[in-house]
Amino acid sequence: MSKYSDVPYKIYLQENEIPDKWYNMRADMKNKPAPLIHPGTREPLTAEQMEPIFCRELVQQELNNTDRFIDIPEEIHNFYKMYRPSPLIHATFLEKALDTPAHIFYKFEGNNTSGSHKLNSAIAQAYYAKKQGLKGVTTETGAGQWGTALSMACSFFDLDCKVYMVKVSYEQKPFRREVMRTYGASVTPSPSMDTEVGRKINADHPGTTGSLGCAISEAVEVATGTEGYRYVLGSVLNQVMLHQSIIGQETYDACKKYGIEPDVIIGCAGGGSNLGGLIAPFMGEKLRGEKDYDFIAVEPASCPSFTRGVYAYDFCDTGMVCPMAKMYTLGHDFIPSASHAGGLRYHGMSPVLSQLYDDGLMTAVSYEQTQVFEAATLFARTEGTLPAPESSHAIKAAIDEALKCRETGEEKTIIFGLTGTGYFDMVAYNKYNDGVMSDYVPTQEDLEAGFASIPKQ
Amino acid sequence: MSKYSDVPYKIYLQENEIPDKWYNMRADMKNKPAPLIHPGTREPLTAEQMEPIFCRELVQQELNNTDRFIDIPEEIHNFYKMYRPSPLIHATFLEKALDTPAHIFYKFEGNNTSGSHKLNSAIAQAYYAKKQGLKGVTTETGAGQWGTALSMACSFFDLDCKVYMVKVSYEQKPFRREVMRTYGASVTPSPSMDTEVGRKINADHPGTTGSLGCAISEAVEVATGTEGYRYVLGSVLNQVMLHQSIIGQETYDACKKYGIEPDVIIGCAGGGSNLGGLIAPFMGEKLRGEKDYDFIAVEPASCPSFTRGVYAYDFCDTGMVCPMAKMYTLGHDFIPSASHAGGLRYHGMSPVLSQLYDDGLMTAVSYEQTQVFEAATLFARTEGTLPAPESSHAIKAAIDEALKCRETGEEKTIIFGLTGTGYFDMVAYNKYNDGVMSDYVPTQEDLEAGFASIPKQ
Repeated sequence: MSKYSDVPYKIYLQENEIPDKWYNMRADMKNKPAPLIHPGTREPLTAEQMEPIFCRELVQQELNNTDRFIDIPEEIHNFYKMYRPSPLIHATFLEKALDTPAHIFYKFEGNNTSGSHKLNSAIAQAYYAKKQGLKGVTTETGAGQWGTALSMACSFFDLDCKVYMVKVSYEQKPFRREVMRTYGASVTPSPSMDTEVGRKINADHPGTTGSLGCAISEAVEVATGTEGYRYVLGSVLNQVMLHQSIIGQETYDACKKYGIEPDVIIGCAGGGSNLGGLIAPFMGEKLRGEKDYDFIAVEPASCPSFTRGVYAYDFCDTGMVCPMAKMYTLGHDFIPSASHAGGLRYHGMSPVLSQLYDDGLMTAVSYEQTQVFEAATLFARTEGTLPAPESSHAIKAAIDEALKCRETGEEKTIIFGLTGTGYFDMVAYNKYNDGVMSDYVPTQEDLEAGFASIPKQ
Repeated sequence: MSKYSDVPYKIYLQENEIPDKWYNMRADMKNKPAPLIHPGTREPLTAEQMEPIFCRELVQQELNNTDRFIDIPEEIHNFYKMYRPSPLIHATFLEKALDTPAHIFYKFEGNNTSGSHKLNSAIAQAYYAKKQGLKGVTTETGAGQWGTALSMACSFFDLDCKVYMVKVSYEQKPFRREVMRTYGASVTPSPSMDTEVGRKINADHPGTTGSLGCAISEAVEVATGTEGYRYVLGSVLNQVMLHQSIIGQETYDACKKYGIEPDVIIGCAGGGSNLGGLIAPFMGEKLRGEKDYDFIAVEPASCPSFTRGVYAYDFCDTGMVCPMAKMYTLGHDFIPSASHAGGLRYHGMSPVLSQLYDDGLMTAVSYEQTQVFEAATLFARTEGTLPAPESSHAIKAAIDEALKCRETGEEKTIIFGLTGTGYFDMVAYNKYNDGVMSDYVPTQEDLEAGFASIPKQ
């Protein structure tokens, strides 16, 4: 008789159990995350310096290291009801396939049209922009999950949405682009000829297929140069971790309600938005010394910011137009190889998570992509849902933890975050299914080249 | 204060409220649906004649016009728990956008990886095949929803799955094909060189891109010619209507639980599997004279079997290898024009629904596709979910009913079926977004050409 045999396969909290406050981990951190600094003065950025770029209220959230809870405005809460609470699912079919005494649960954030957890922050950022009386927002998107989420959120609040999409994705993922257009966003391949930085890059590098760094530069240029616009970002920032805490709070409440006692909590980590959200209230307990958990960040071996990066102030973007953040980084010039988990191809990591990792409050592992797709396929065939490559990193780590339990006989309870679905990643699945997917791990030399771009501290 | 202001935005029944029996509408029909007949003898098919093609237990379900309820086996029920109960959602954002006094609810079947309701019958058919000790099943797929659902179901029961996919879809929808492969199915473009009928068609029509009719013929040839295999079908058949009754039963139970009293129930109709499932228990009440409802079938103007077809015995497939069914049909030679709602491009209609329609127990309307995409876009932008083109036919009809209420001031309660998501239909959305989508309504001459292929009765 399993410890959790009375727990339903899928736990859905009731609508009135959706949390009405976000939890701000920073309030409980003894060592606060280092502030964003101005690259010229190296002084912490002030609210005044941030407001031409970000919405006013979001700047306050970015700087708020003290308030433990922040109210979720009613309009955002109403939107959350459209797709939340998301289910916490007991992966009994996967447990059986692994023949493990471990208990595996996953929090599934993919049951909305954007296909991922990104919507949790997109709707908040769109709301504050609308409230400030702005006309619209700009952003960049790589794989397209964030752009899709923001398009949905802006459509809901009737806000203009300009997305700069890395040209190679624009061309290779026309369906993602079309979803954004269906929600009314304008999608421009980057580098474009609409911006100064875009024209310069096109002139310097004819035929370039773009990069996230360049798309960020374009989006920021348009936001700061257009009356009534601001720039929004889907990960890394403190405000994003705050909004994403809704994932962890629901998970925490569901655990309490059904007597689930997690030992290990696992999430994939690119910029850190999903992982930071999922672990938030559990990390809060650990920070306050109330309870202990193992937290595991999972990253691709091709872009190993935690496992092989350094903790230092670096630029958030390749183009060096953004402020500097203290974070685990591979250097803003580090070019990750073609890994299909586009959402994890970021040279840096959330400053909040970086500080927690540096303080030894969490660990990290990395996997090569064929291992990850093997885990993804097993998961799809046993649990039904086709996972996004990004999320599948967490699946792989959860499977490995469960297999360790098979060795030791331990009945650990493992929770991982399934951030999204893989509908728009079938090119990668095709490579895996055809046996032509390759792995890549940067050499120490590759890493040193990236590290060289990190400014002197 | 709305009549339903106490009803949550999304109603999820509890896991233990998933029905444990399917409801068989035929038991309550005074005029039973006409039986399948042998094209040579024109005699009703016997169980013995069907068993080389279909699984034994499914043949019994196909012929069962008397048992009102049929137990759902535990293994199927366990699988249902992976993605059911599906939510009944109160479309308050759409209501507001339409400024209507009508109340609009929709039953959403798209929250599973197959992206549609097809999984409800796929898992049942796979289960009975496994139980009979078979090695595998064969089927055809057009747009790919049915093939995807069957691949997932077969993967769950470790059953071989051979899908014949219409060649034009195989080439234009490589991602659908890849999802099926990820679940372990073999996917062959049809016409292939593996079968006699495929080789003949390739020889007679070099360069053909295939048709559903040809793919059915190939799948049936392989099933009947291979030891341990049977053929399975995702719509039209009585057994499929039976399995899909789970949609309507959950809807019915949710209505009872929350005091929702539907006046109008709407579903899109291709072969009829979703509509037949959604209306089942409500139609039961109407058949037994206990309650009245308006039932509306919605079809594309390009393939109007109910609204412009005739009620007659016709072949279920273009290739005339299948039995004949009495149904509303456009003639098995009718070639619908290129409409993007691939799942509604079928010349015939479920015999059960055909009989109900002929008895005046339900009505039907048809829409052109640009109207349907306009409704789909409004729905996506207000309710969040990106609908499949097929499902969007029902959205369009629900919007029209709600707008009528705005004229009359009536507070009708409307329920429609949202059968699936549009992730794999972005080529069609792209055409609509670019303003280059065209409509097509067959002329009377086109219809007469199709009718000419209907055998003499």
